[in-house]
Amino acid sequence: MKKLYGTTVPIITPFDEEGKVDVESLKKLTDHVIDNGLSCLYPNGTTGEMLLLSVEERKLVSETVVRQAAGRVPVFVHAGAMNLADTLELAKHAVEIGADGIGVVTPSYFKLSDRALADYYIQVANSVPQDFSVYLYAIPQNAVNDINVSVAEQVAAACPNVVGLKYSFPNMSLLQQFMLIRDETFSVLVGPDELFHVVCAAGGEGTVSGNAQVIPEHYAALWAAIQSGDNEKARKLQRKTNVLNNILCAKNNIASYKVVLREEGVIKTAHMRAPMEELTREEEVALMKTLKEHNYRTV
Amino acid sequence: MKKLYGTTVPIITPFDEEGKVDVESLKKLTDHVIDNGLSCLYPNGTTGEMLLLSVEERKLVSETVVRQAAGRVPVFVHAGAMNLADTLELAKHAVEIGADGIGVVTPSYFKLSDRALADYYIQVANSVPQDFSVYLYAIPQNAVNDINVSVAEQVAAACPNVVGLKYSFPNMSLLQQFMLIRDETFSVLVGPDELFHVVCAAGGEGTVSGNAQVIPEHYAALWAAIQSGDNEKARKLQRKTNVLNNILCAKNNIASYKVVLREEGVIKTAHMRAPMEELTREEEVALMKTLKEHNYRTV
Amino acid sequence: MKKLYGTTVPIITPFDEEGKVDVESLKKLTDHVIDNGLSCLYPNGTTGEMLLLSVEERKLVSETVVRQAAGRVPVFVHAGAMNLADTLELAKHAVEIGADGIGVVTPSYFKLSDRALADYYIQVANSVPQDFSVYLYAIPQNAVNDINVSVAEQVAAACPNVVGLKYSFPNMSLLQQFMLIRDETFSVLVGPDELFHVVCAAGGEGTVSGNAQVIPEHYAALWAAIQSGDNEKARKLQRKTNVLNNILCAKNNIASYKVVLREEGVIKTAHMRAPMEELTREEEVALMKTLKEHNYRTV
Amino acid sequence: MKKLYGTTVPIITPFDEEGKVDVESLKKLTDHVIDNGLSCLYPNGTTGEMLLLSVEERKLVSETVVRQAAGRVPVFVHAGAMNLADTLELAKHAVEIGADGIGVVTPSYFKLSDRALADYYIQVANSVPQDFSVYLYAIPQNAVNDINVSVAEQVAAACPNVVGLKYSFPNMSLLQQFMLIRDETFSVLVGPDELFHVVCAAGGEGTVSGNAQVIPEHYAALWAAIQSGDNEKARKLQRKTNVLNNILCAKNNIASYKVVLREEGVIKTAHMRAPMEELTREEEVALMKTLKEHNYRTV
Repeated sequence: MKKLYGTTVPIITPFDEEGKVDVESLKKLTDHVIDNGLSCLYPNGTTGEMLLLSVEERKLVSETVVRQAAGRVPVFVHAGAMNLADTLELAKHAVEIGADGIGVVTPSYFKLSDRALADYYIQVANSVPQDFSVYLYAIPQNAVNDINVSVAEQVAAACPNVVGLKYSFPNMSLLQQFMLIRDETFSVLVGPDELFHVVCAAGGEGTVSGNAQVIPEHYAALWAAIQSGDNEKARKLQRKTNVLNNILCAKNNIASYKVVLREEGVIKTAHMRAPMEELTREEEVALMKTLKEHNYRTV
Repeated sequence: MKKLYGTTVPIITPFDEEGKVDVESLKKLTDHVIDNGLSCLYPNGTTGEMLLLSVEERKLVSETVVRQAAGRVPVFVHAGAMNLADTLELAKHAVEIGADGIGVVTPSYFKLSDRALADYYIQVANSVPQDFSVYLYAIPQNAVNDINVSVAEQVAAACPNVVGLKYSFPNMSLLQQFMLIRDETFSVLVGPDELFHVVCAAGGEGTVSGNAQVIPEHYAALWAAIQSGDNEKARKLQRKTNVLNNILCAKNNIASYKVVLREEGVIKTAHMRAPMEELTREEEVALMKTLKEHNYRTV
Repeated sequence: MKKLYGTTVPIITPFDEEGKVDVESLKKLTDHVIDNGLSCLYPNGTTGEMLLLSVEERKLVSETVVRQAAGRVPVFVHAGAMNLADTLELAKHAVEIGADGIGVVTPSYFKLSDRALADYYIQVANSVPQDFSVYLYAIPQNAVNDINVSVAEQVAAACPNVVGLKYSFPNMSLLQQFMLIRDETFSVLVGPDELFHVVCAAGGEGTVSGNAQVIPEHYAALWAAIQSGDNEKARKLQRKTNVLNNILCAKNNIASYKVVLREEGVIKTAHMRAPMEELTREEEVALMKTLKEHNYRTV
Repeated sequence: MKKLYGTTVPIITPFDEEGKVDVESLKKLTDHVIDNGLSCLYPNGTTGEMLLLSVEERKLVSETVVRQAAGRVPVFVHAGAMNLADTLELAKHAVEIGADGIGVVTPSYFKLSDRALADYYIQVANSVPQDFSVYLYAIPQNAVNDINVSVAEQVAAACPNVVGLKYSFPNMSLLQQFMLIRDETFSVLVGPDELFHVVCAAGGEGTVSGNAQVIPEHYAALWAAIQSGDNEKARKLQRKTNVLNNILCAKNNIASYKVVLREEGVIKTAHMRAPMEELTREEEVALMKTLKEHNYRTV
């Protein structure tokens, strides 16, 4: 079964001046991530503002990224939507376009029992071929619903193609418990990327990092250090990366990513989809100034 | 400006066997609520599973209810959606079909700054006629984003048609603070309906209660007692109502409402939209048995 | 069985210049509270900095207040301490000095199971005469341990002299549930005093208010309005009181109470016991200025 | 300046049948910890039930451990108490008896501002010789007050003898931020010992582990693996240790430690100080059975 590893990038969704998905920018961003040595792509994630896009827009995003990546790195499409029907449709589409797998966030807003949550994941996993990889994805501070160890175990037991989980909260105790699932082979990736090194030290597979598309060299170097087992080097790189991330996340992090990528010529505009807010002109200037003072593209 | 008051009912969205909106059941439910003496209607609220419906389905629901109510009671359409464009479209539609006003839940999943939240509400309120009433709606345990007093004050100051707020968390301190807005004229309704009596004693206008569509006589009697200023009578009725609500909310409350309404012949099925869960057959039987033991339709 | 009611005042513990309990000031404060029409006294509560005092100091405080009150109003001594032995000693002392009853906060810092919590309260209640009233007291945001309905029911069932509970968190749903204990006769008082009116409307007995010792006229008037069943008058008085409380609680509320009481000549110093902080001179001046602008002693 | 490192053991406080501190058992426990290869001792910590002991009892405990250790391993005495005066007295005593340093938990129950919290620590650190090491200690889930990065930085800047911090909550993001203080030399130890390996990988100095006194061989082996930089070996040992810890912490963890230590003949009784609860006889039997099935003393 295919798995995510290293630095998986939940790429932002670029918009044009009219607010439509900007396919050309998306292609350039795909190349930017791959050319700078990152490990995997994860379009339509939270960083991709997925729940603000229509199903058709999400398909366009996924298709564009899968085609542009053209097998150079694994592409896992995030398929989680507000209701089951949309999730199933997006999962089916991911299979059809040749994605390497999918990730599926918990349903959000409406609180679900553990029983309903497990049912949901089992239905999604069973709807795709049994050799098509599925990742659970919990981000409880946004989605309200959380995935506990018992639910993850139940779904993993029922569905061999559920290969792992992305967990986006820095609860290191819980992250370690997920790693024990399926005889310690469950693939665990962490959301807050300041835990990249330690999650890997503990046996995790990597991080899902929005910051990585902005400062890819740092993540490529950090992943290399982690793979070499050099704790001291990894620690130094992780700490430098954390400093840059604090700058990128001081205001809305997704808006900040778009500003930097636009300034570097990768995408055309820094537009967000409302109600997501954009940086003011003053905030944009301050962001770029601070990043440059930190030589942000130099490891 | 029109306002909500008394018992406002966020009616469930009935589905047919194919999972489509069941218009006939919705009409009967509208009559059921009005004929049993409740105060106002609020289609497409959280209890209406609104974020699991398409924009077109939500329009169908709103239109059906407004036409069926035919001016007998005020109908405020809940118009909040995942993104601003959908919310604006639903708000415009509410005006066009002759609704009495709208409610708008905070955006969910993606965390917004206070600035972005205020901007969102100001844009929505400005998009409708200035004599068309708008209610803010916060349910932080589901939507992640909360409305604090400062944001509510800012929006109220900018938009004369923002007449009040529905707050769905039992923080009585905060509820009282909202009542002070706009020289103590801001209309405050509470979500957890066990606070109906006390919120009104404190100066609030009423409750938004999903339970009320199932046990309407209790809410009609309670509202009458509240209006008469009889604390002792209101307290007794509130306590009896709370007992019934605990039964209705022991499992998924929306699913329970549908079961009872189906058993009473008001709607055709108890189907929910996935991933929302339905009661098992055993749970349905146990629910009806317990309710009957409590003579649930007798005040 | 004796019960607390109306405005119960957890009086501050005045210290002299050397940091010792100032008995003379404490007597004057006791008179101040009684002379201004408040209902009951509650020395050694959280507002009395009880967990920073020695057992001997707490006995001195209790004895002074009970003697000075001399039966004019009920005095319930707060007896909860860090460990059971100290609590038992303080409970015994309260009986010996002729207090009307005791209150007992949950143990703090170390998390207890429900079983251990119930055991603790049963041991304390059984250690005093069976006609000596005991109040449970939960303030989970400070004590870590909370009292749920099940524990309160269990203790009430086991101990006839456990007459009620003081709950110091504005969860109005939970407060109402406690009122149902012992066939709806359990005495419930609320901590955050902005809920005084509504808790009484719902069937509670009153509030435990630190603010009341600083602005007693407001609480006396509010309690009179509540007793007369005049919701509108109570609401107005409650709102005015809330405004003053916000001023008193803007910085450390206990430190603020001491400053005002010192300025009015009731107590000699505004000293707190470290690590509790005192207001700076600038903060003291600003506090008094703001209060005077609000004519704080005029209802 | 002396520092804590590796596995620091917050030893339990053994009591005799009358509930008094059992000095002989305490000496044997001190030897047990040292003889089994653990790194440092930390008497009177949370695991030592310190806030349930009198100041005199705490002095007896500290003195016994320091004398018995006799320089074989560093002994840091936990000196944090409910009020500043007691903390200062315990800190002075720790110096006098020749302890290697102190730890000081945040004040508990009463919420302090950051200013008050920093003042508290600065006063304590200044009260001991400037070459006598002090550790900050935060356990917000018990003490209510937390230490944020800004307060820790401020105290570290003001007091050269504040060498580090013990943080007892598994927030890995925050733990890493503390490590950056004082040019990345601040000594950080983690409370939940399932983070021992990863905190060290990230640059921390070790763990403070109550479990370690019960299964010392596991911690000695884990610390050796961590020091050798062997992530894979450390991960395996950490995971095995975590399994045993889950068993020990299933009920009250301190009570469980005492049962095992009594069964092994290290201490005489498993008594706790009320209101801390003890295991029932059935729970004791089940605990020992489960531990033996896991060969708990074999690495």
